[in-house]
Amino acid sequence: MPAAALPLDADRLWADVMALADITEPGRPYTRRSFSPLFLKGRAFLAERLAEAGLKVRTDAAGNLIGRRDGRLPARGIIAVGSHSDTVPSGGRFDGIAGVAAALEIARALRDGGVQLEHGLEVIDFLAEEPSDYGLSCVGSRGMTGALDAAMLDMTGPGGETLGAALRRVGGDPDRLASAHRDDVGAFLELHIEQGTVLEAGALDVGVVTAIVGIRRIEIVFEGAADHAGTTPMKARRDALVAAADTVLSVRRIAEQLAAAGPDYFVATVGILGVEPGAANTVPGRCRLVIDARTTNPALTQRFADAVERASATHAAEFAVVRASFDVLSDGPPAACDPALRAMLHDSAAKLGLGTADLASGAGHDTAFMTRICPSAMVFVPCRHGKSHAPEEWADREAIAAGAAVMLETVKALDRSLSRAARAG
Amino acid sequence: MPAAALPLDADRLWADVMALADITEPGRPYTRRSFSPLFLKGRAFLAERLAEAGLKVRTDAAGNLIGRRDGRLPARGIIAVGSHSDTVPSGGRFDGIAGVAAALEIARALRDGGVQLEHGLEVIDFLAEEPSDYGLSCVGSRGMTGALDAAMLDMTGPGGETLGAALRRVGGDPDRLASAHRDDVGAFLELHIEQGTVLEAGALDVGVVTAIVGIRRIEIVFEGAADHAGTTPMKARRDALVAAADTVLSVRRIAEQLAAAGPDYFVATVGILGVEPGAANTVPGRCRLVIDARTTNPALTQRFADAVERASATHAAEFAVVRASFDVLSDGPPAACDPALRAMLHDSAAKLGLGTADLASGAGHDTAFMTRICPSAMVFVPCRHGKSHAPEEWADREAIAAGAAVMLETVKALDRSLSRAARAG
Repeated sequence: MPAAALPLDADRLWADVMALADITEPGRPYTRRSFSPLFLKGRAFLAERLAEAGLKVRTDAAGNLIGRRDGRLPARGIIAVGSHSDTVPSGGRFDGIAGVAAALEIARALRDGGVQLEHGLEVIDFLAEEPSDYGLSCVGSRGMTGALDAAMLDMTGPGGETLGAALRRVGGDPDRLASAHRDDVGAFLELHIEQGTVLEAGALDVGVVTAIVGIRRIEIVFEGAADHAGTTPMKARRDALVAAADTVLSVRRIAEQLAAAGPDYFVATVGILGVEPGAANTVPGRCRLVIDARTTNPALTQRFADAVERASATHAAEFAVVRASFDVLSDGPPAACDPALRAMLHDSAAKLGLGTADLASGAGHDTAFMTRICPSAMVFVPCRHGKSHAPEEWADREAIAAGAAVMLETVKALDRSLSRAARAG
Repeated sequence: MPAAALPLDADRLWADVMALADITEPGRPYTRRSFSPLFLKGRAFLAERLAEAGLKVRTDAAGNLIGRRDGRLPARGIIAVGSHSDTVPSGGRFDGIAGVAAALEIARALRDGGVQLEHGLEVIDFLAEEPSDYGLSCVGSRGMTGALDAAMLDMTGPGGETLGAALRRVGGDPDRLASAHRDDVGAFLELHIEQGTVLEAGALDVGVVTAIVGIRRIEIVFEGAADHAGTTPMKARRDALVAAADTVLSVRRIAEQLAAAGPDYFVATVGILGVEPGAANTVPGRCRLVIDARTTNPALTQRFADAVERASATHAAEFAVVRASFDVLSDGPPAACDPALRAMLHDSAAKLGLGTADLASGAGHDTAFMTRICPSAMVFVPCRHGKSHAPEEWADREAIAAGAAVMLETVKALDRSLSRAARAG
């Protein structure tokens, strides 16, 4: 659909995305790391835009930048929209940023249209969604949902600064974190680039996220014997790499089977594999690998882990090495998007004549935390070749505007349906 | 057989091995790196022992320490025995050292027995058999056999010092290398610890080396796409590690088949495997592995390389990645030990009541170079659990003495047979 027909200003939205892109480390675009001076410069730009849009601007105790448009009936609570403005090093112009700019544009479109909602609307720029220099991601959305604890605030970053101190530096207040933990949000919506190729391949306008995967990381260590590569006959070897290589192939095969079985999303990857001593003339004596398994169905995670556990034990035995460890390094549960919200997003897209698809998010998002405190949902917009976390990351102006328009229509519908529910309740 | 029955002094031989072991970096036994002050201290000890044994001591232009016992008929030429006194970092007390001490003891036993040979006898401590800090191994035996060229002398080590300058520092003369290139050696024998478990497993006294393996190093690089581990469906992946893992298993399988087919020795190892970018949440985009293949039969090297070439191409295609390179990094031919010398070693062992086995050497040795200028052979003595290049490396006093006695009897037999041949010729 041509951008001109959308109920918002696609050019104005695009201009904000591009203006934020300009606020980057010049030597490695596009970099605006959370807690950095450039990050605060980006936020100053956003705060100005939010204020221009008639919103009341504040930073909560968890370091989230929030612009608020009051509703007609304050008791109704809040409808929130947002994403994040920080980037990975040498990241892109759209990951997070498109969602913040879309949320801002929704507020402006409501004002321009003279639409007065019963609910308050909050535009949120969550703090540090990407893995920060303090070792933690989703700092702001954790804080808003009661998932940021004291041990996390003690994590340290550059120069030994604690996350708590860094939070204070960007306008948060680690001593009053409870004040950021919300119970007044009725619904949350986030727009994000897909970071995959489903929409592009299907020439679809909008993805409606069914769930955000949970991620389990498993570390396996094989220990054999670092013998001489020349004098140790094939039959006498205890080669840790061979057992690890067979495990890499098992991970691939098991993941392919679970993915193909459907309907749940499943992917698994061995992204880290280290060999010791790592010399051409020495049989590998130790091999460590890290598996990243992601699914929308926790039962699949367990089936996968059980199958890999059996396979890796078999491979260790076959090659006369010891599987010295099989450890879960981290395990986050999947987060389901709200079915009613998803239905409303589909309806809004249909009204706008846009093609949609249900799809799972294989990446983590602030929305995963927001599901803990309110019905939440996500809109994905297509991005070129699925490329993300890289300077060539790209989403079209019209694609972002279309996704934002679906969110705008859904915010209006939500205001009505939540109000109906409140009157009925 | 009890050491007392051997025609040499096992305790005297053992005392030399232990005395050299004491000349080590105190913080990391046993380390006596070539070209280091400790190495020169070890050589000063050896030079004193050689002189005590009545040998004329010199260092040749290639940096080899040589003790010479003249023969009755100088025109007959030389029978040489020796090995090396340098070690790897944190190496053992026997690798190389046992062979030098055995050669020294052979000279002493001949003197003590009043045996006058027609041939001159040279006891050689070859310079820098182990990979040196200048990137080259077998420096001395290369020099003695015309295989040390100008480009090698230009290789640099610590502080930018050239190998040529280092050679001069330890008493060699890079400008007169040709003088070290010998044409007067009628036979060469080396004693060495097995660095494997064939003798130990068979409870055998002495190994007679059939050949020293050639080593081919092959580098393979797979290039895929470093995509997001969460958002890239299994079917859309171009995972370089999976293709590499399948290749590791192919190398193992092909090597096992070639080794099992016999009679030639064959081993192959993937000792180096690197994954990029090496992050848990990123599909491996690049994977490099280095294969080390060793055999006594060059035809097997080619069969192996051809099979791995085909397998790795298949794996690349199967996982939609590119095999960006398949390169031979280095390729040294195998070196056969002289059949007549081998037969004499077996005969000598039989006379002494010692059990022998023919076996290939999977490790490189100075003997491999010496085969270029004269009939050469090696005696292996058992070492505990095949452990080498480590402080726990161990060979029994009696085992070394038995191997040295076999060499001593062979030197005597050689003197007779070479003289017979000379008279006949």
